Amino acid sequence: MAVVVKDIGSFYVGGRQVSLSGLPIEQAQLTKGSPPITVDPNGDFMSGQMYVQYVRQENPKAKYPLLLWHGGGLSGVCFETTPDGRPGWQMFFLTQGHDVYVSDSVERGRASWSRFPQIYPGQPLFRTKKQAWETFRIGYSYEEGTYREATQFPLDAFDEFMKQSIPRWACNDEATEAAYGQYLKKMGKSVILAHSQGCGFAIKAALEAPENVAALILVESSGVPDLEGYDLSSLKHIPHLFVWGDYVYDGKNWWNNFCTLVHEYRDKLAAAGVDAEWLVLPEAGLTGNSHMLILEKNSDTIAALLQQWMEKKNLMRGGA
Amino acid sequence: MAVVVKDIGSFYVGGRQVSLSGLPIEQAQLTKGSPPITVDPNGDFMSGQMYVQYVRQENPKAKYPLLLWHGGGLSGVCFETTPDGRPGWQMFFLTQGHDVYVSDSVERGRASWSRFPQIYPGQPLFRTKKQAWETFRIGYSYEEGTYREATQFPLDAFDEFMKQSIPRWACNDEATEAAYGQYLKKMGKSVILAHSQGCGFAIKAALEAPENVAALILVESSGVPDLEGYDLSSLKHIPHLFVWGDYVYDGKNWWNNFCTLVHEYRDKLAAAGVDAEWLVLPEAGLTGNSHMLILEKNSDTIAALLQQWMEKKNLMRGGA
Repeated sequence: MAVVVKDIGSFYVGGRQVSLSGLPIEQAQLTKGSPPITVDPNGDFMSGQMYVQYVRQENPKAKYPLLLWHGGGLSGVCFETTPDGRPGWQMFFLTQGHDVYVSDSVERGRASWSRFPQIYPGQPLFRTKKQAWETFRIGYSYEEGTYREATQFPLDAFDEFMKQSIPRWACNDEATEAAYGQYLKKMGKSVILAHSQGCGFAIKAALEAPENVAALILVESSGVPDLEGYDLSSLKHIPHLFVWGDYVYDGKNWWNNFCTLVHEYRDKLAAAGVDAEWLVLPEAGLTGNSHMLILEKNSDTIAALLQQWMEKKNLMRGGA
Repeated sequence: MAVVVKDIGSFYVGGRQVSLSGLPIEQAQLTKGSPPITVDPNGDFMSGQMYVQYVRQENPKAKYPLLLWHGGGLSGVCFETTPDGRPGWQMFFLTQGHDVYVSDSVERGRASWSRFPQIYPGQPLFRTKKQAWETFRIGYSYEEGTYREATQFPLDAFDEFMKQSIPRWACNDEATEAAYGQYLKKMGKSVILAHSQGCGFAIKAALEAPENVAALILVESSGVPDLEGYDLSSLKHIPHLFVWGDYVYDGKNWWNNFCTLVHEYRDKLAAAGVDAEWLVLPEAGLTGNSHMLILEKNSDTIAALLQQWMEKKNLMRGGA
């Protein structure tokens, strides 16, 4: 289905200048066939920015921009074409009439990253195939190649999926929160659809600037920020949808801990009078989804559920 | 000007599995508010892939896909919205009717990067603001803030530009060449528009598979690959356009070395009967352009010159 596009583009938000000194001079040949040069690694750099790419339509049918916030160890790519080559959620929501914004968080993908330990005070973490296979609830044992029989994950495309994997640090949450905050301020009222680690940042951003959030869709949230000092009733105008895949409580993964934490947050929201729906896909008849339900075989079916929810919440133009 | 888009998506090309062992176990808290976990950094990873994002039109006016290959220390972002917020070359060529493919080379941006020195046998290089300011021929002295008076570079957006800067290694040329080769093979006949370091990879890819190249536009090429074993007459069907900005020979930069090397290559091409045009922008009346002419104030004017050249070379449908 064709989309009439007004413009495609990108921008950075956040970031600040940092300066390094005292590092030894380096020699480098930057391009094959070019003469070697002397490189002074000391100087000024930009650090802490995030990257946002958008596709805006001539005639959007949604009232607000739709912001897709990826999870940890990934970039915005997870919302694009799926690893097995089908159109992803970016394209799905474009065809539904949303202006879609896909970002790369601080230190991930096109947001770039900074020298460590000089600028980032820690080491990067690289996700192994085993960690993804087992942590994301795709399979029980990577070494044995065992998987959940009914899995919706496109197993043949697991290596393609792993190419999306991006190193991460555990020391940059403040910069990331600041960048997401500036992003939301720049955008104004928006719908945020976040996945995994992105959910914690989305909750935090909503608590900081509830006036800029029209709705929150939180897919497999991996945490809840510190709530001290926040009044949850400030979120009363923001419908929340918490989405979970299958196997969360099957006892062979750690997601039950996260899910329990997030459920407590959902209960607090409900107690404060916030509309906070809890959608467990197998309870809605969709079984076999892992943590990466965004890009699994039934990804369009799940996206359609989210679209229906947005329509029900009066987030489309001409709606009820 | 609206573009009727058939699909927007992305894919990875290249890459292989690499395995690490013998590294010590780590402790990490992956998300604020989540319990700390034990991380085994040993295992299998995907490495060496590159990332490609495309926008395909319902009714493209160009005969072939247009592939934009970025330069060193940057990602495909340099072809998107300019740092001062104007539509970039991606959008320009979309409005001209091309299916536009923007990639992130191996180890850059959304292509991700691998642990060093265990997988990449070298250290990353981080470009300082001084290096960009002086090397890219924007200004004479970063410390003194002096710049070429007639510069087309959007000086007020220099920090925004530097947020695009991506760390690079000097040890991955083989993997990068392999990935670009696979990319071109997957695409079939295409027009390649490359910048800086990307030009060397484009020349190499054309020499390896001339049948897959319809035309080559080489903007400020920073090198020429080793030509041993290649027959330049195999490129006879490929029109070449070499493009240079201003100040290349002003004696206050190193570009004269690169430009001389590339001119020798151009002469060899001409001697082999290849159509190889040499376009120096100030000789065409466009002055003040730095190495980053892609995104400077007159970027649309320059893109229009390239578009005219493509029309002249019969690369558009319904053309002469």
